[in-house]
Amino acid sequence: MTRVTLQPKNRPGYLMPIGGAEDKKRARVVLSRFVELSGGADARIVVIPGASTFPFETGAAYCTLFHHLGARSVEALHITHRGQANDPLKSALIDGATGIFMTGGDQLRLLTVLGGTIMADHLRTAYEMGATIAGTSAGASAMSEHMIAFGRSGAMPSQRMVQMGRGLGLTEDLIIDQHFSQRDRLGRLTTAVALNPGLIGVGVDEDTALIIDADGMCEVVGSGIVTVVDGRQLEYTDIATAKRYDVVTVSGIDAQQYRAGEFYTVNMPDFAAEKQAI
Amino acid sequence: MTRVTLQPKNRPGYLMPIGGAEDKKRARVVLSRFVELSGGADARIVVIPGASTFPFETGAAYCTLFHHLGARSVEALHITHRGQANDPLKSALIDGATGIFMTGGDQLRLLTVLGGTIMADHLRTAYEMGATIAGTSAGASAMSEHMIAFGRSGAMPSQRMVQMGRGLGLTEDLIIDQHFSQRDRLGRLTTAVALNPGLIGVGVDEDTALIIDADGMCEVVGSGIVTVVDGRQLEYTDIATAKRYDVVTVSGIDAQQYRAGEFYTVNMPDFAAEKQAI
Repeated sequence: MTRVTLQPKNRPGYLMPIGGAEDKKRARVVLSRFVELSGGADARIVVIPGASTFPFETGAAYCTLFHHLGARSVEALHITHRGQANDPLKSALIDGATGIFMTGGDQLRLLTVLGGTIMADHLRTAYEMGATIAGTSAGASAMSEHMIAFGRSGAMPSQRMVQMGRGLGLTEDLIIDQHFSQRDRLGRLTTAVALNPGLIGVGVDEDTALIIDADGMCEVVGSGIVTVVDGRQLEYTDIATAKRYDVVTVSGIDAQQYRAGEFYTVNMPDFAAEKQAI
Repeated sequence: MTRVTLQPKNRPGYLMPIGGAEDKKRARVVLSRFVELSGGADARIVVIPGASTFPFETGAAYCTLFHHLGARSVEALHITHRGQANDPLKSALIDGATGIFMTGGDQLRLLTVLGGTIMADHLRTAYEMGATIAGTSAGASAMSEHMIAFGRSGAMPSQRMVQMGRGLGLTEDLIIDQHFSQRDRLGRLTTAVALNPGLIGVGVDEDTALIIDADGMCEVVGSGIVTVVDGRQLEYTDIATAKRYDVVTVSGIDAQQYRAGEFYTVNMPDFAAEKQAI
């Protein structure tokens, strides 16, 4: 039934951005899949609720869920200030994890505490060694190097509708957005791609996830769709000369939508290096 | 008289962000230094005026200047749309350059044409093989991976005063700003560092340049100062919860100012890799 199996050690694991509001009470398709990709009954899961306004409650809720879904070990790792995220002992709690889950909330709150810290280095190392990294809502956006910090809703792109910041850098090629169809975010993702030429926008719906393996193979799971706004063949945009919230032109975007069970590929860093070598 | 000499081939050359309005009529300290670092009488210089509203006039003016300063070969490379920047033959004109100079104008105009293209790959390769890359004003900002696209003036940081986009990625660690003291840009650079935790802001004054070698050794030249807003030890910021243009707190910033003739070091990518390995 499942296409993907556990990634071998010593190569990057899976990235699993989730669009928020994933089913927590019934079939729990998305969350079950995360536990499975983290090793199932052998999974050692660390929950990072640093984006949440109520980190202790949120962390406890996800720990309970992953425990019920059969993970062997579940911990919540609380960081409320940068001193904690720069504590080597606290950061080392990530090292043995086979799955790391970042909750929703506000991605900029998470990044202003976690960004550029020792713990962020440990998280990247865990991913590079084979751990599955999932994030829902804010936790999904936080995965990008070029991260959507915040923005406006709407279908049409305009110069000021999105503000970018530095994310965790788990992917340098993808700009991840979430609650995508539900919050009408096509305009802000297209704007983000126009401001970051050459990158690929990925908009994940609620109760939906994209599972990206180390080769850039992707699978959609859950009840919604994933919208890809691929800016690698961008032809033209007037965003540099547009005024504030005036609509801008962005041409040459390859837009695609995938429902659950669909597969496609994106260029991940390994492929990008190859491309440059040609 | 000069501390730095030409970088050997097959390792990165110099990065030389210039704060704009560099002297073009008298001692021409900054521009002379660029020609010297590009090989002096052996220099093969390519001028890229893609940020300018008047690229042909601007390109011609810099070509004349570098010719008078003794460079052996000077060309202007014009790109007004992405099709040109994705033309392998046109992009190959960069390959033999020992010095590449990006003019002023609007960095977002330059990046919406050059970002993520084949020519941008050639430019990075030329830098990695030893060419000196200079840029003035918009051309300086364009060097960063996390680039200031535009923003407001003012000494105090606020959440909305700067908008980031993807630059050329010649440095992943530095966010470069320009016309720095003259246009009162401390607030926007501090905001950029708060939105991109772990990075180093560098504000370059008019008629001033920073010369950064492959080891991260830096030298200031010209008549103004370079302001460093080092966010690597960032302690706290409330930028995630601040409202629009309200002033925000950013603590733990190491701010420094250097005049011409001063040296200091920043962590360049090689060092960052070492740091992560510890």
